[in-house]
Amino acid sequence: MKFRRSERLIDMTNYLLEHPRQLVSLTFFSERYKSAKSSISEDLAIIKETFEQRGIGTLQTVPGAAGGVKFQIKVTDEEAKPFITELCEQMASPDRLLPGGYLFMTDILGDPSIVKRVGRLFASAFAETQIDVVMTVATKGISLAYAVASYLNVPVVIVRRDSKVTEGSTVSINYVSGSTKRIQTMLLSKRSLAEGSKVLIVDDFMKAGGTVNGMVSLLEEFKAHVAGIAVLVEAEKTEERLVDEYLSLVRLSDVDEKEKKIKVSEGNYFNK
Amino acid sequence: MKFRRSERLIDMTNYLLEHPRQLVSLTFFSERYKSAKSSISEDLAIIKETFEQRGIGTLQTVPGAAGGVKFQIKVTDEEAKPFITELCEQMASPDRLLPGGYLFMTDILGDPSIVKRVGRLFASAFAETQIDVVMTVATKGISLAYAVASYLNVPVVIVRRDSKVTEGSTVSINYVSGSTKRIQTMLLSKRSLAEGSKVLIVDDFMKAGGTVNGMVSLLEEFKAHVAGIAVLVEAEKTEERLVDEYLSLVRLSDVDEKEKKIKVSEGNYFNK
Repeated sequence: MKFRRSERLIDMTNYLLEHPRQLVSLTFFSERYKSAKSSISEDLAIIKETFEQRGIGTLQTVPGAAGGVKFQIKVTDEEAKPFITELCEQMASPDRLLPGGYLFMTDILGDPSIVKRVGRLFASAFAETQIDVVMTVATKGISLAYAVASYLNVPVVIVRRDSKVTEGSTVSINYVSGSTKRIQTMLLSKRSLAEGSKVLIVDDFMKAGGTVNGMVSLLEEFKAHVAGIAVLVEAEKTEERLVDEYLSLVRLSDVDEKEKKIKVSEGNYFNK
Repeated sequence: MKFRRSERLIDMTNYLLEHPRQLVSLTFFSERYKSAKSSISEDLAIIKETFEQRGIGTLQTVPGAAGGVKFQIKVTDEEAKPFITELCEQMASPDRLLPGGYLFMTDILGDPSIVKRVGRLFASAFAETQIDVVMTVATKGISLAYAVASYLNVPVVIVRRDSKVTEGSTVSINYVSGSTKRIQTMLLSKRSLAEGSKVLIVDDFMKAGGTVNGMVSLLEEFKAHVAGIAVLVEAEKTEERLVDEYLSLVRLSDVDEKEKKIKVSEGNYFNK
């Protein structure tokens, strides 16, 4: 059975979206649809144009015998801008305020449509970076880490604060929390990270950066490298930031616990 | 600017995949592409046919003025069968064996391509069920829960074993672990679940079912209802199963810790 162009376009779109950052050969599509490579090339040109026009992403063409196409998430500023503004508005609601200047974000982090879009933005920002693994610390960052990883097509590793039998043997480190100055422990399953891995660290909230810094130290233990750091929210008023280079979508600039007022602004996403 | 059919098909495919279980009106598409509703109807007929033929999912048409289309994940047995077989093979590797008859699954649960497919299978199995929320317990089930939820287009709530300031006020219960018979605590943020919610419980591993049972009790505290239970792996040899109705993809039928042998078979997915 041969496939009509319309069917090919629909199925190819689905296939490419499901396999981001993966090189798919023309031969693969040509066999899948029992169609000539010249037709497949035309299909891909149409898909590429539409993906770029509609802000779905980009389609890189790799020429040559081992060539093919690679779909990459690429978010336009026209998509990112209103989304970040909307996030800021949601975060600024005074009933999110918790003791200690923390924000209640569980609802936001549990909403797949928001989490997916945060994932798209992070994946887009690191589209040109080589990343082997996304790392986060349990519990709240996991949904974000997983969303980014699925757009980058890499595995997720989860750092824990307590040891569980189901992790097998672990490597643990102590680190100093930046805000409370208390010594804490984090650990990672030994088998979960290969030496030399390039790691994108993802978290939901960064105050002084102690937790992120802990993850960086843990990477050293594994002889792995930091490829980037991305957080959903950064708190601005911290005496001393332990982490320099990071990406943030939202900045919590002022929290008045007494007056129950939160001031929120855009993070550094557009400064990059 | 008008859109050609090919562009519409590509963008509509992306849009529908990104908005599962959501009613999208013909008017919405007609305005989005500045095209007649009759053309949109034809487009949707082609998409529906291709989605069903390629095992991407189904497209329900809701007639009438308030009508439109709804995309739903629907996994064919031809997709599910080889995937579950592959999962079983991966799980049967003897180096997964951990003390106490547990399995190391961190790598599987951290692989977005596997997690997504498990999510597809669960979402497909519960496609006809009304579900408002997906619930899991920290930490290992989170990626699965999030994948299912994103295909079902509902939020995720995460039950924890320890209280954190970032959760706000919580409701906690004590429950008895089915395997170890020890009393444990689990808690859920008060704001995260509305009364009357229909909840799909998702977890990575079920032995006697104590944890799942704990989540069921927690739902009672919230006056919420169990809409279904889905686990990736169930362990077979348990004296007493605390949970009756559940869906599983993989069954761990025999673990010989001394000989380092694991026997794994298909779960009850196809018996439903």
